[in-house]
Amino acid sequence: MALIRSVFQDELDGVSQSLVDLTTMVSVSIAKATKAILSADLSLAEEVIATDDHIDTFQHDLDARIIDIIARQQPVASDLRALVTALRMSADLERMGDMSHHVAKIARLRHPALAVPGELHDMFEAMGAAAFKIVEKTGVVIGSRDTEMALEVERDDDEMDRLHRKLISTLVEPNWAHGVECAIDLTLLGRYYERFADHAVSVSRRVYFLVTGKFA
Amino acid sequence: MALIRSVFQDELDGVSQSLVDLTTMVSVSIAKATKAILSADLSLAEEVIATDDHIDTFQHDLDARIIDIIARQQPVASDLRALVTALRMSADLERMGDMSHHVAKIARLRHPALAVPGELHDMFEAMGAAAFKIVEKTGVVIGSRDTEMALEVERDDDEMDRLHRKLISTLVEPNWAHGVECAIDLTLLGRYYERFADHAVSVSRRVYFLVTGKFA
Repeated sequence: MALIRSVFQDELDGVSQSLVDLTTMVSVSIAKATKAILSADLSLAEEVIATDDHIDTFQHDLDARIIDIIARQQPVASDLRALVTALRMSADLERMGDMSHHVAKIARLRHPALAVPGELHDMFEAMGAAAFKIVEKTGVVIGSRDTEMALEVERDDDEMDRLHRKLISTLVEPNWAHGVECAIDLTLLGRYYERFADHAVSVSRRVYFLVTGKFA
Repeated sequence: MALIRSVFQDELDGVSQSLVDLTTMVSVSIAKATKAILSADLSLAEEVIATDDHIDTFQHDLDARIIDIIARQQPVASDLRALVTALRMSADLERMGDMSHHVAKIARLRHPALAVPGELHDMFEAMGAAAFKIVEKTGVVIGSRDTEMALEVERDDDEMDRLHRKLISTLVEPNWAHGVECAIDLTLLGRYYERFADHAVSVSRRVYFLVTGKFA
């Protein structure tokens, strides 16, 4: 027997796919922002900054679509909750794009100098890789509703927190030799990566709650 | 002729009032957090940290109520937009509570020492006062839908940005004498106050858009 799918179900799937698309856009932006900050690549930084407008527009259009679906379809409570959750996830993802943008702006501000001293290159490379991995996985979580993977995202965030703590303890070591301005840049960069990962965790938790009805 | 008000209209007004209540809770928390950070007052810091849970619970309950109204009342497009906007405003306000919480946590971390050196006392007092003023005004904007005042909030945020820039330029002066750890604390504190004000601007802009249909 063929499954008969409703227009409404197609619309819900479309929303889910757009959220996955947003994770892809954001994963590209954080990867490029990390490369820009680690190599003082001005044109790449400019590209990330420009792309953030596209992400914002995409999110804005997606939100308008979600609200239109709610208005037209008058969904039952469970579908309504899923749609409201989609609005929240899109806000988280848009904010992750902002974090990439902030990273890129520091790269641009310090260009042609490197914002990240050589000895911290590997640490920021690891933070960038952790951020990329976590948003990539978040995209899979949205698409698959895989609750096990949603819990994995929480654990990946622990790795980001560990890197962040290591960064701060490096900055406050008595032999820190790169001055206050550099420490301020790195404090903000660290915060941007940490917030990026926090928003991904927030998205994964929302999927977990939608599927299980429980908090992760 | 007596105006006949619907249950639905009363529910919308109730949502608006709850948002105003949230601004009051947040204004108290930022005022106390500022006092805690400026006077190394541990018990006040603990109070702000504990209160943040109340704010989160209040917001959570408000959001559940809004979603329930949408599900039951199946509102027309304009009312639906107002309700979705209320969800976004509550998220902004909850996040402002987080910022107070973050400020208080730095006060607790450095206690019994002062996180803010004496020479920066007045600057942080001014940031705290600006944050308080901006959230107080945001409450009035939500309650009155006064678009002129919504624009005032934008201008008040310019004052916060000015203070924030002044802070960063103080930290990077060659004669900065309080070391990197203190500079990191102050960088984060500055960012928390700036974000606090940004969220208030976001709330005011949403009211402006609801009333005028235009972006501020």
